[in-house]
Amino acid sequence: MDASAFDPRDFRQALGMFATGVTIVTARAADGTAVGITANSFNSVSLYPPMVLWSLARNARSLAVFMEAEHWNVHVLANDQEALSNRFARAGEDKFSGLSLDVGLSAAPLMPDCSARFQCRSVHRYDGGDHIIFVGEVMGFDRSEHAPLLYVTGGYALAARKAGSVATEPGAKEADAPYSEDLLGYLLGRAHFQYMAAFRHALQQWQLSDEAFFVLSLLSVREGLTQAQMAEHMAYTGVDLHGPLLAGLLQRGLLLASAQAEPAHSLSPSGRQAMGQVLAAAKAVEAEVAQRMGAAQALSLRNLLKHAIAATDPGVPKLWGSQGAP
Amino acid sequence: MDASAFDPRDFRQALGMFATGVTIVTARAADGTAVGITANSFNSVSLYPPMVLWSLARNARSLAVFMEAEHWNVHVLANDQEALSNRFARAGEDKFSGLSLDVGLSAAPLMPDCSARFQCRSVHRYDGGDHIIFVGEVMGFDRSEHAPLLYVTGGYALAARKAGSVATEPGAKEADAPYSEDLLGYLLGRAHFQYMAAFRHALQQWQLSDEAFFVLSLLSVREGLTQAQMAEHMAYTGVDLHGPLLAGLLQRGLLLASAQAEPAHSLSPSGRQAMGQVLAAAKAVEAEVAQRMGAAQALSLRNLLKHAIAATDPGVPKLWGSQGAP
Repeated sequence: MDASAFDPRDFRQALGMFATGVTIVTARAADGTAVGITANSFNSVSLYPPMVLWSLARNARSLAVFMEAEHWNVHVLANDQEALSNRFARAGEDKFSGLSLDVGLSAAPLMPDCSARFQCRSVHRYDGGDHIIFVGEVMGFDRSEHAPLLYVTGGYALAARKAGSVATEPGAKEADAPYSEDLLGYLLGRAHFQYMAAFRHALQQWQLSDEAFFVLSLLSVREGLTQAQMAEHMAYTGVDLHGPLLAGLLQRGLLLASAQAEPAHSLSPSGRQAMGQVLAAAKAVEAEVAQRMGAAQALSLRNLLKHAIAATDPGVPKLWGSQGAP
Repeated sequence: MDASAFDPRDFRQALGMFATGVTIVTARAADGTAVGITANSFNSVSLYPPMVLWSLARNARSLAVFMEAEHWNVHVLANDQEALSNRFARAGEDKFSGLSLDVGLSAAPLMPDCSARFQCRSVHRYDGGDHIIFVGEVMGFDRSEHAPLLYVTGGYALAARKAGSVATEPGAKEADAPYSEDLLGYLLGRAHFQYMAAFRHALQQWQLSDEAFFVLSLLSVREGLTQAQMAEHMAYTGVDLHGPLLAGLLQRGLLLASAQAEPAHSLSPSGRQAMGQVLAAAKAVEAEVAQRMGAAQALSLRNLLKHAIAATDPGVPKLWGSQGAP
């Protein structure tokens, strides 16, 4: 807590609690050489005139070019530009190799597909300890609908807007009960079943239960599974494949079974037709949910569900990938 | 895209694509008056010596105090400090009223419960258009495990680290199939059922199906519901309350029904005992998932599931709150 106890790693970790976006700042040397560097020290400064700032280490290889450059461009990276961020964070290689550039207001490289871009005229270069603080006047800017990439606590991240309460009446005090709407299990179940409910009409047209849909879904991704293999993939759902479920689907002609001792299962033509219609309905729900939540939020939710699935994975075989036996 | 088309609102929206944390910067005037202001223009500058910066509008009421202050403190706000952020973003009121302060290295106010704090000596005050850029040397800092609050695209947000693939083998190309692991519906279902699977042993001890658990859960939050009311709460799950489910739970003595024409249902003592044990197992899963995902990630997931639930809500009655009839 006092300066004598200063540890650079601790300091970086404390700074890492302040989340930032990720930018790449670019400029062009007098000899035409393009330079660019990943920076999360960007920030807004002024509205009238429009100004932004960022900092560059005094020992950066590109410092001389940025000190002399009359213009530089700031690219606020989108969530799918992690590889670009890594490329411009490393020294040495030709960072611009293979990149297509847009035409900008100055000679400074201008890269496409970012969340936002600021084309700047360099106006101040201030002392900032072992860094130089560059302040630029914004001559041009644009933004896209690409959700931005974040950097927080030392790693890449995605952001999501804060949501309100869903199952508690406005003004009601959150129940002290052991079972509350902040229980992850409640929220997962409710989100899952509401999503299913939104296309259950398509399941009902084919008289498919949720469980039957899981079986058909599995076989639509991976064909030729024995009952034991299907059971291995589906054990976590609690669905009992040894009961009447599988036999019923075979009897109704939605599945086919090979003539082996341990039959391999696949979708029949009518099973394929049913899945085609049900998946079309599910994808319509997906599109509407993404539109209502916002694309950035839907992206973040997918990301976090993957965290939750990894955290609770009892060892489910991989579903997508090589089609060999598990 | 060019300066002649400059629109301050567009400029702010473009700047909003760069995510930031949220800070409160504080100082104390010579007469002892405490000042503080919410700022997201904070950033790190230098490691040797440790320096940070932030910007303050030239027309801010607290500018004179900050210009003269030898010290100021930066508080990186935690995800539950949104109210504090709003309080210090407004002018006029006594912002520090009712706040308890920690003892710091200087007289500048030091507030508790933040994600990180930086106690600084003011070293530079630079021109930044309509703002002043304050650069401070960090004399002391600390951080906590509180996940930070974010500000992005004009609103408060939470961050989550990026996750890898869960159902696709490493190196395998993501299937082009209509049914892929990036379908939200797949991820919701898998996360829900894996979570259930992790405490299904407790359900099995009481011979409770997932559906029976939903019924008991509902009645553990809200007692005295008729079958029609229960059906309204549970319709989205697809569970059929008119079948043998409810009758079986009554017969097994897990539920009690009043002697009215439309009986009101409640948990029996043994139903309560079963729910106590099952919920204890579910909460153990919750704690382990939160520990494995990280508390910040679990918080973000809850937040996003609330977004998804709001986006797919078919009009489910509120579960928590007043106990009147729906």
